[in-house]
Amino acid sequence: MLDYFSIKFMNGKLCFLDQTKLPDVEEFICTDSPERIALAIERLEIRGAPLIAIAALYGVALAVKASEKNFYPAIERFKSTRPTAVNLFNELRDLERFFEEDIKNQNYEAVLNFAFDYHKKDERYCENISKIGADYIENLFNRKLNIITHCNTGALATGGIGTAFGVIYELHRRNLVNMVFACETRPFLQGLRLTSFELKKNKINHVIIVDSLASFIMKKEKIDLVIVGADRIAKNGDTANKVGTYSLAINARYHNILFFVAAPSTTFDNEIQEGENIKIEERSPDELLSFGSSKVLFNQINSINYSFDVTPSDLISGIITEKKVYTPPFDFSYD
Amino acid sequence: MLDYFSIKFMNGKLCFLDQTKLPDVEEFICTDSPERIALAIERLEIRGAPLIAIAALYGVALAVKASEKNFYPAIERFKSTRPTAVNLFNELRDLERFFEEDIKNQNYEAVLNFAFDYHKKDERYCENISKIGADYIENLFNRKLNIITHCNTGALATGGIGTAFGVIYELHRRNLVNMVFACETRPFLQGLRLTSFELKKNKINHVIIVDSLASFIMKKEKIDLVIVGADRIAKNGDTANKVGTYSLAINARYHNILFFVAAPSTTFDNEIQEGENIKIEERSPDELLSFGSSKVLFNQINSINYSFDVTPSDLISGIITEKKVYTPPFDFSYD
Repeated sequence: MLDYFSIKFMNGKLCFLDQTKLPDVEEFICTDSPERIALAIERLEIRGAPLIAIAALYGVALAVKASEKNFYPAIERFKSTRPTAVNLFNELRDLERFFEEDIKNQNYEAVLNFAFDYHKKDERYCENISKIGADYIENLFNRKLNIITHCNTGALATGGIGTAFGVIYELHRRNLVNMVFACETRPFLQGLRLTSFELKKNKINHVIIVDSLASFIMKKEKIDLVIVGADRIAKNGDTANKVGTYSLAINARYHNILFFVAAPSTTFDNEIQEGENIKIEERSPDELLSFGSSKVLFNQINSINYSFDVTPSDLISGIITEKKVYTPPFDFSYD
Repeated sequence: MLDYFSIKFMNGKLCFLDQTKLPDVEEFICTDSPERIALAIERLEIRGAPLIAIAALYGVALAVKASEKNFYPAIERFKSTRPTAVNLFNELRDLERFFEEDIKNQNYEAVLNFAFDYHKKDERYCENISKIGADYIENLFNRKLNIITHCNTGALATGGIGTAFGVIYELHRRNLVNMVFACETRPFLQGLRLTSFELKKNKINHVIIVDSLASFIMKKEKIDLVIVGADRIAKNGDTANKVGTYSLAINARYHNILFFVAAPSTTFDNEIQEGENIKIEERSPDELLSFGSSKVLFNQINSINYSFDVTPSDLISGIITEKKVYTPPFDFSYD
């Protein structure tokens, strides 16, 4: 069992671990303010595509608690927090439908239960992704593995054990992990700060590397696979994920290393055919001058800070969901 | 003319700009202590393959000033500072030969003049590299260019205007630069802190990006070329340079972008056939927990910190030296 959690709804409040302070400080914040939850998502105190969606649903519930009239403004507020992860939009749309379906749904209890259900569903999805992914990978290799991962995709990013991290966790449980090389993930350092925290808590062999070292590690060490999460997957399998994913995929291809994406079906965008159409969040250039949440440089520096990139489906060896492992050619039009 | 300098020998002392404090603080340190100079090299207060060699020669001169008997211990001390950049070893070996050739060379004046001469030679080399590289690239494209570079290769890394940076500077002088995308270069952030400083001082259009974004920038923007420096070049053209270079070269190949290395001939290692044999410096894992010279994270984190990687010659479109632009297949056995 994990001895940490990312978010928990308790006594009418959403309690969350402030991820900007990890790993040096483990600080929980409990709030019943929807606006505070929206800010937490914008500031990356709460982050990870599946987790953002869960937190937003709790936030809408708390808005409805004050008044049912707050429902639509709250939906709009949460939609405005972050543009790239599609889970948020998918779940808010489902909540809207649920709310509108029946007058009995238009109260705090009903919306809160909707949030609870989705939270539990995401936990189950993580469990299934972990097992399905580990089965598939165990079958392919049947030996101890050297794995590269990027960003954070564990319990800090989801409602359960994680997506890509869940698969790694399950492989570790089966004694199939030799070493995890986790990329630090500049600028916000989710790998260095969060994935290292989770790997350590779960006693999984690991080292953190700067993002640009992954390529040389693929050459020097016998790397078996790369596995990452996703923020939005188009119908053709093109995948938006944390900046640096595209480079890892190209490097994996060059070194003949398998490249997997692990994500729940809530990460699929059924309205987008190709990656080209995915909106990529551009965050404050100040993130480059900072280390986690500490601003360190004060000089004025020109920079561009795209938070995500898009990996074309032809670089992806498999997409692991709670249902199955999809292999190329991908076509998610009918799923 | 540049209004900043990296090192200058004045009034019997070596004065250097402490590069760990840039860009927020421009602090000069003047010392006549060879050990202080060796420490400055180890701490990256003085860095850049050509510049390290120049500083070491001044350091040996100052050691000889105290006593001629200090010559060999000083040579050994400076050889122990950093293992990967070969210029240091090439120049210290040449200085040894010079010292031994004639009893008249075995004094402070003679050794100091040797250092001065090498410093001036490196300045000329930079000028030639810049012109030869810019001529070659102007010929190829004859239009305004979008360029990606990595680490710092300017006046802060050399005895002159720089190597890769020198070429960019000369292209800018000819009004051929549209935009320079400079990678921040984790962990020590030579790009974010030093290259941004030099690009700004020289009024060259630029933005800084996290290292892992370079790949997506190659896809989104019309990038014409990547140009980097080198720390050691084997006889077959394999090139050791700052960690991240190998990944850039693979990404450039994937996107059909030219990839150039610019370095003086003092960066060639005539004793090594292939990149496999180049010793790669592993620095303190604490660099990952730091931003420039500020330690920010205090948690204990497992990490590997290779400072360099090796780019195989088949990924290199051209090697620009003070003599000419070498194109594949490379064979530096007889140069």
